[in-house]
Amino acid sequence: MGVPGHPLDRMFNPRTVAVVGDKGPNYMWLRNNQPFRERGGNLYSVQIDEKEIAGIEELGVPNYPSVAAIPDAVDYAVVAVPRHVAPHVLRDLIAAKAGGAAFFTSGFAETGEELGIELQERLTVMARESGFNVVGPNCMGLYLPKVGVRFHPEVPVAGDGRTGFLSQSGTHGIMFSLVMGAHGLRLSRCASFGNAIALDIPDYLDYLTRDPETDVIAMYAEGVRDGPRFARALREATARKPVVVWKGGQTEAGARATMSHTASLAAPHAVWRGIMRQCGAIPTDGLDETVDVVKTLLDAKPATGKRFALMAMTGGQSVSMTDAFAREGFEVGPLAERSSDELASFFNTVGGSFRNPLDMAGTVQGKVEVLERILAILEADETVDAMAMEQSAMFGARQWKEHPERLDALLDALAAHAERSAKPFLMVMHPAHEEAYVAELRLRFAERRIPLFPSFERAAAAARALPHAIRA
Amino acid sequence: MGVPGHPLDRMFNPRTVAVVGDKGPNYMWLRNNQPFRERGGNLYSVQIDEKEIAGIEELGVPNYPSVAAIPDAVDYAVVAVPRHVAPHVLRDLIAAKAGGAAFFTSGFAETGEELGIELQERLTVMARESGFNVVGPNCMGLYLPKVGVRFHPEVPVAGDGRTGFLSQSGTHGIMFSLVMGAHGLRLSRCASFGNAIALDIPDYLDYLTRDPETDVIAMYAEGVRDGPRFARALREATARKPVVVWKGGQTEAGARATMSHTASLAAPHAVWRGIMRQCGAIPTDGLDETVDVVKTLLDAKPATGKRFALMAMTGGQSVSMTDAFAREGFEVGPLAERSSDELASFFNTVGGSFRNPLDMAGTVQGKVEVLERILAILEADETVDAMAMEQSAMFGARQWKEHPERLDALLDALAAHAERSAKPFLMVMHPAHEEAYVAELRLRFAERRIPLFPSFERAAAAARALPHAIRA
Repeated sequence: MGVPGHPLDRMFNPRTVAVVGDKGPNYMWLRNNQPFRERGGNLYSVQIDEKEIAGIEELGVPNYPSVAAIPDAVDYAVVAVPRHVAPHVLRDLIAAKAGGAAFFTSGFAETGEELGIELQERLTVMARESGFNVVGPNCMGLYLPKVGVRFHPEVPVAGDGRTGFLSQSGTHGIMFSLVMGAHGLRLSRCASFGNAIALDIPDYLDYLTRDPETDVIAMYAEGVRDGPRFARALREATARKPVVVWKGGQTEAGARATMSHTASLAAPHAVWRGIMRQCGAIPTDGLDETVDVVKTLLDAKPATGKRFALMAMTGGQSVSMTDAFAREGFEVGPLAERSSDELASFFNTVGGSFRNPLDMAGTVQGKVEVLERILAILEADETVDAMAMEQSAMFGARQWKEHPERLDALLDALAAHAERSAKPFLMVMHPAHEEAYVAELRLRFAERRIPLFPSFERAAAAARALPHAIRA
Repeated sequence: MGVPGHPLDRMFNPRTVAVVGDKGPNYMWLRNNQPFRERGGNLYSVQIDEKEIAGIEELGVPNYPSVAAIPDAVDYAVVAVPRHVAPHVLRDLIAAKAGGAAFFTSGFAETGEELGIELQERLTVMARESGFNVVGPNCMGLYLPKVGVRFHPEVPVAGDGRTGFLSQSGTHGIMFSLVMGAHGLRLSRCASFGNAIALDIPDYLDYLTRDPETDVIAMYAEGVRDGPRFARALREATARKPVVVWKGGQTEAGARATMSHTASLAAPHAVWRGIMRQCGAIPTDGLDETVDVVKTLLDAKPATGKRFALMAMTGGQSVSMTDAFAREGFEVGPLAERSSDELASFFNTVGGSFRNPLDMAGTVQGKVEVLERILAILEADETVDAMAMEQSAMFGARQWKEHPERLDALLDALAAHAERSAKPFLMVMHPAHEEAYVAELRLRFAERRIPLFPSFERAAAAARALPHAIRA
């Protein structure tokens, strides 16, 4: 797999990884990458500090005094040396014809200091002249879940990821990976690229666009050096798969912060939004929204219109759910007459309603076949483009803990509907006081490809991405 | 305590509670109210169905065939009989001079059916002619945490609540109580009042306004019968304590839903927002936002301006935090020169920044005394009106699990600062993949009165309420 012949293909599918300059007591990078070794990858260390070598070898990682001494061709290196040493290591990596290297090292242009700016310039010139794949500096580098290359000890190792993530922020790259994992979603490939002195968003984006293992692309971007090149790459990407763009430095104050962070000069936000619109990208504003949108893109059927049928368990929820979706510009209107007539024939209207929004606990509680009947009516209703249903943990958790077979039956019914239906189906479950339980439950919904959201507001915001959803 | 002489005082401080018409197998209302009995309250049942009486008596609750037969004066009754029986029970309660009664019974005007409308009219006339305190119908009634009267088996029993909640929706009343509990916050009194045929928001609001146990009032409202009376009560309330109003039926579609839910005719939302503004109430749009705002009002110092100093652990978080606060209209500008000079003297600028937003992990990590020094600098800075700090669970959880003393030291430092400081202090911790752990941690922050939020977006939205905060 991968993209054979692409300039980034070697580093994105490494067989040999070198960690340069890792130090105890934690040996963060060597520990992060143990899964790579366990999966048969060649993991090497380069460290000249005699005090560190014993600790490195204890981890089962062979250490060498230089990149040149490593007996295999290095596909990807993580460099964690002091900033003044970085140019020397880069020179050695270029000479060794490595596939690419991420510089965890920081202290460059983002400091605003003369020395940092000068060192960055040296790295930039070296990378440009050699065409070497520099990731960063001031970054966490690559996270390749399938082969076990990681930038954090708790991000999942898994081969089933379908989302590529590009991040100018290391924290956001890690947080996105962790939160996606907590939602039962995996990444295909992720690059945290910080100051992006050589490889920039268009380079990574081009790889993910062609990568058959990546179905959805998301990114956290603070700035781009070459606007037209970025727009071109973005247009090519969105022609093939959905691209979600979370922009950092949207506000004047936020843009000032990007200067200190990655030395990025942010484009005015209106200009940026214009590029997003013209290129067909999906803009988001924060971490949770980005995860919600990716989930929607992966696991919902695409929407062809804005008319939602909303299914709530109680009246108060039906009102709040409607407010949340209507505020986001969706229509929650009367159902077709045929649907209303049929619903009226069996609906319990004491403490319930079959008008859209449906208030249906008294009708469906504990009766999955009734829920299935309602779903089939809404599926057949031509005035309904999409559906969302709520079931609060307050009502669900206790009965499901006591009667797990009821949860199984509900999941079966919803998964079968979502699979069969031509319309998007979203589920909302506020965790209330059952956060730990719902965090586990969420993985079961994810397994069954039922997109689950913790609030009406978050579901409705994510629903804006439905026209781009890719579930077949 | 309570409000002696107020028409609602008896039912809000009951010594005798009757449950009319509860049924097995669950005996929901009798079970919900066991804590009332355990705290010395007189709990009685009224049930004429012979099949139910054994189950009731097994719960230790004496059963009587009628309200009239109960040997004590009933301060509050919960009525859960079929709708056609409701008028008969109301007649008996009026005759017995009970302090008030909540009608859980539904199936009235909210159904849109002739029979339901007619039955509601009968109850309304009876309540009006007698001046009897009818709560509802179509509601969950009162939740009085201190005395153990409850509308749900999992809402906390506790005497330290300071927030009164009024809810036209039973679900929202329960959910608010559960979520507040999960955030370490308690209620003083809560009323779910559904169709509000007799007692309406102004009546409950008047009680909470005068109630010395209620410091903050929040409500979920769908509609009010008498707009001018509502505005008057609201103005009187906001003159004495902050009032948070979450309006259901904000949108046209949502307003249609309120008709089916509580037969409420919603005012156009622009009119409603105008009333909120004129009366000095704090509008919110959903459950989570309402909890966030109440937390802010209770545990933050009041703000006197919009200039925030933001303290982040990493660069990416510093950018996103700034974007979130700036989007909500806060200013995140340069600090005073004296602050910058002092910060520059000890700040680690490699991978960090002392400009506002601060990017400070490399400076403060593991060094509480340095964090205290930064807080003192920001406290003294006249260009700073308020502070917010982030610490993601990603960085925190692992070290705190291994070194609980570090968490203790952090909590001590932050609590001491928040107590001493004249400026609001908000904390943000995204739970990432540690939701269960953070749910526990949140209680520890709540104990120390440090308002904790799960995202920048939620913290920034809640910060809009800071001018109304009441922490002395």
